[in-house]
Amino acid sequence: MARMIVTYPTPQDIEAFDRHYFDIHVPLARKLPGLRKYEINNGPVATPTGPGAVYRIGILHFDDLAALEAAFASPEGQAAAADRRLFAPDGSGFRMYIFDERAL
Amino acid sequence: MARMIVTYPTPQDIEAFDRHYFDIHVPLARKLPGLRKYEINNGPVATPTGPGAVYRIGILHFDDLAALEAAFASPEGQAAAADRRLFAPDGSGFRMYIFDERAL
Repeated sequence: MARMIVTYPTPQDIEAFDRHYFDIHVPLARKLPGLRKYEINNGPVATPTGPGAVYRIGILHFDDLAALEAAFASPEGQAAAADRRLFAPDGSGFRMYIFDERAL
Repeated sequence: MARMIVTYPTPQDIEAFDRHYFDIHVPLARKLPGLRKYEINNGPVATPTGPGAVYRIGILHFDDLAALEAAFASPEGQAAAADRRLFAPDGSGFRMYIFDERAL
């Protein structure tokens, strides 16, 4: 399976962030072709530097890297990526990791 | 399910890192009581700033946050954490995220 893990820093306006995330972004992301599973954190994200640095984590599962790349090359993927830049611009502390995964 | 996601920056000596990781750290981490699944990246980790920033990602699954906390409070957890600090010290770019997870 391939994964995309995204982390969002804690926003200044949490209510506005959640509204955009759940009302606009999640519905767009759920339309990604080939998306097998979509998980998020349920409650706070703890880190070694204490709570509060990261507010939201998303984990998107695809069959393989080719499927993930095809998803983000599609119109649905372009729309989801463009929307993400609206509420979590590059350089704002947003992070993304894309990789193939294997179990140990 | 609760998750611990860890990310390791690309080491200067990849061969030494891999040797320590697979020969020492993974066997220690696999002894964590309550560990349900242990996944790592298989190949490169892509990020928006290009490849190479993150070399290794680990995803550890536990039934819930209480089980995860108990695991790291145990002797096995203390040993795994102490070992991690040897090859990926705090402040070296190592990151850790602990959270409860839900599917959307």
